Amino acid sequence: MSPEEFRKQGHQLIDMIADYRQGVGALPVMAQVEPGYLKAALPASAPLQGEPFAQILADVDQLIKPGLSHWQHPDFFGYFPSNGCLSSVLGDFLSTGLGVLGLSWQSSPALSELEETTVDWLRQMVGLSDQWSGVIQDTASTSTLVALISARERSSDYALAKGGLQGQGKPLMIYTSAQAHSSVDKAALLAGFGKDNIRYIETDENFAMRPQALAVAIEQDLANGLQPCAIVATTGTTATTAIDPLQPVGEIAREHGLWLHVDSAMAGSAMILPECRWMWDGIEQADSIVVNAHKWLGVAFDCSLYFVRDPQHLIRVMSTNPSYLQSAVDSKVKNLRDWGIPLGRRFRALKLWFMLRSEGIESLQQRLRRDLDNARWLADQVRGSDEWELLAPVQLQTLCICHRREGLAGDALDAHTRRWADRLNASGVAYVTPATLNGRWMVRVSVGALPTEREHVVELWRNLREVVQ
Amino acid sequence: MSPEEFRKQGHQLIDMIADYRQGVGALPVMAQVEPGYLKAALPASAPLQGEPFAQILADVDQLIKPGLSHWQHPDFFGYFPSNGCLSSVLGDFLSTGLGVLGLSWQSSPALSELEETTVDWLRQMVGLSDQWSGVIQDTASTSTLVALISARERSSDYALAKGGLQGQGKPLMIYTSAQAHSSVDKAALLAGFGKDNIRYIETDENFAMRPQALAVAIEQDLANGLQPCAIVATTGTTATTAIDPLQPVGEIAREHGLWLHVDSAMAGSAMILPECRWMWDGIEQADSIVVNAHKWLGVAFDCSLYFVRDPQHLIRVMSTNPSYLQSAVDSKVKNLRDWGIPLGRRFRALKLWFMLRSEGIESLQQRLRRDLDNARWLADQVRGSDEWELLAPVQLQTLCICHRREGLAGDALDAHTRRWADRLNASGVAYVTPATLNGRWMVRVSVGALPTEREHVVELWRNLREVVQ
Ligand SMILES: Cc1ncc(COP(=O)(O)O)c(C=O)c1O
Ligand SMILES: Cc1ncc(COP(=O)(O)O)c(C=O)c1O
Repeated sequence: MSPEEFRKQGHQLIDMIADYRQGVGALPVMAQVEPGYLKAALPASAPLQGEPFAQILADVDQLIKPGLSHWQHPDFFGYFPSNGCLSSVLGDFLSTGLGVLGLSWQSSPALSELEETTVDWLRQMVGLSDQWSGVIQDTASTSTLVALISARERSSDYALAKGGLQGQGKPLMIYTSAQAHSSVDKAALLAGFGKDNIRYIETDENFAMRPQALAVAIEQDLANGLQPCAIVATTGTTATTAIDPLQPVGEIAREHGLWLHVDSAMAGSAMILPECRWMWDGIEQADSIVVNAHKWLGVAFDCSLYFVRDPQHLIRVMSTNPSYLQSAVDSKVKNLRDWGIPLGRRFRALKLWFMLRSEGIESLQQRLRRDLDNARWLADQVRGSDEWELLAPVQLQTLCICHRREGLAGDALDAHTRRWADRLNASGVAYVTPATLNGRWMVRVSVGALPTEREHVVELWRNLREVVQ
Repeated sequence: MSPEEFRKQGHQLIDMIADYRQGVGALPVMAQVEPGYLKAALPASAPLQGEPFAQILADVDQLIKPGLSHWQHPDFFGYFPSNGCLSSVLGDFLSTGLGVLGLSWQSSPALSELEETTVDWLRQMVGLSDQWSGVIQDTASTSTLVALISARERSSDYALAKGGLQGQGKPLMIYTSAQAHSSVDKAALLAGFGKDNIRYIETDENFAMRPQALAVAIEQDLANGLQPCAIVATTGTTATTAIDPLQPVGEIAREHGLWLHVDSAMAGSAMILPECRWMWDGIEQADSIVVNAHKWLGVAFDCSLYFVRDPQHLIRVMSTNPSYLQSAVDSKVKNLRDWGIPLGRRFRALKLWFMLRSEGIESLQQRLRRDLDNARWLADQVRGSDEWELLAPVQLQTLCICHRREGLAGDALDAHTRRWADRLNASGVAYVTPATLNGRWMVRVSVGALPTEREHVVELWRNLREVVQ
């Protein structure tokens, strides 16, 4: 495609996206298609000759859009917000349009330096001290994997340079809570620790890790000749946004010389609000932190910020230095390939930069406060109703709710819960996420999509009460 | 930013990008800035209030553009082509604009199904049998890590469900060539194998792996009580685009039951040309393959295709199934979170779909043939000159060249080589990559940027001869 053709089609596409964002509220939130619908509609092979662009855009309308669940919809209360603020969208467009790669500083200096600068802006916004350096990873899953590999290597005195984990004497142990995200488990398994060497620490009535139980587990493992290696604590768990207590957990980590990784994928965004900073009490004791700027904060996916206290542990594990990537300035610059798994790197900082500058800190704070207010309002309605129940404290923007019906309990209540949640989702008027808590089904309502205003939450409350009838 | 503001600014940005692509040829290819130039020019913190968008775009012009090395420039001969074909750029714009995530099929059905379909289109284009299934990863580095973790688990009878690599008896061994990309080493270290357990197999005069040496290394390790696990072969090495012989290597892998991963990050694109398919003779014996559609082929970064023969080995390692991601259709669909490390997933297939449809297979083939012709033309000039030398066969679009000067050898020749390469890059008329081969410096000329026509290669040849004077 020539630049002239791109100009023409690009303008069309901008309008298509602007129209989509303006009109998305009128669409059913959850896709109403059957498995296989798209595969059946598409040709079996790529075309030999190019097709007119108008045809492709027409297919987007007819085939793609009906198969989307709309994350940017005002009635999206599913999973967690994955906000793609339109200013960050433009930053991402520029990144793709420029098409430059950050293999090394020299391969596009602005890419590395803007990433360093904007990540540092965010560090300040979430109230971390200047002892932290950061880098953009794709997702929290990857950030946590990187953290556990770093921990593994620090604990094994950098065995990667020798026999790796295969030469390890005492098994290295990982500690996390039973409420941690599945990505913690996955990271530990990918890093080679093995399921037997992960300890799931008991949580309290608010679903937060019990430091006392953590301490006991560590002592027991030590007594059994195992080697504690890392703790993964969560600020804002996926199910209930529970807050693991970082102060005591951090003290335990220090006492035993363990790596402390904090998964703040979700709640990290809230750290731009001083009134939420208590959730991070003790954060300075951590070794690594992940904050997903691509969730509630609003940077278009993917933009996961990974902060480390001592970059040497990261760089010793991640660095490669083949001759073709060396340059005369290497000693003076940060080569971001040494800060993560991939070699190739997009100009991701542009979307962060565009959003922070175009919105400004105060309007981001305002939006998050709007969402917290909306969640509190909904929580009040639930609390004020006889039929509904909150199953966990509403500390952030997520509610875990259950509708009670006389005579229903156990499996029958589970069935009722899943039935009404599915009915609500299938109706297209809202999207919520059923999940289990203490072995029973409940429904998560995650407030905080970009266009969600009070009126949408009011409407949700009405729809909830209607759908259970 | 509101949709209306986005519409206005989006049109501006489209023009900015179209202008950039049209005018990039007039800019110095390599950025001519000093380390720290941008950090010094930017404010220390994010702004409290939003700034006018025009200001941001002005800063892009004044601060960002001078700090770019231009990968989409007709005189870019550095590293490897990372082509961002403008049709794929538009597909990526749509992905970011829609802002949907593929956590599960249900969370946006079109995202999963279009990925399945377009990856299968590409499978056919590169001539793989229908025994392969694929998925889009971010980079080849990640794909190779995923491959080695899968190999580790298959070899250890899925020890991840038990003691992990820590419970491993005989050390698991990895085999690759001394010319393999640094990402292979990195992947083996991240997966926990340890440096001592990687064998770098000797290469022949064309820098391709010697199967005989591979067989001997495996036999020796077996004799020493070690457990061979995986072989990583390369189709198109980074330094010289050497082609490891897959037929004999694959036979050795089969004989010993080893995982064979093929790194075709670079040369995979050439498999859409029947005349290049000999490079993949024996490919059907592999267990996994990576092809970077974001390199020469032209899909905007990042789009690395990872193909596996038996997805069960991938899914058993990668799958997670927390309650909040389950849905009623799970048994009928492909949940892509089980196919890679990250949970969150962009709608990456759109950029592949847009490009394949808008360009068509034949025009992609034509472009690649143009580049191969250009490389051959340049190789002929080098061969026809007394002063210049080709250090490796030109099998694809990369040349490894050296300028000889009477009386210069060893370190002095190295210094000469690095001097003229740096001078050429600093001049801004072309961008080439110095690298080592057999311990000596040479210069890689990687032909194949999107806008590179014969005239640019002719001009490069003139510039090369001038810069060594
Ligand atoms: C607490 C927590 N950690 C990790 C993740 C995974 O995020 P990602 O998709 O960026 O890997 C999520 C959300 O899915 C989460 O809520
Ligand atoms: C042969 C080969 N493998 C792997 C890579 C790494 O690619 P990526 O940046 O996608 O990880 C490259 C290029 O950098 C390469 O040439």
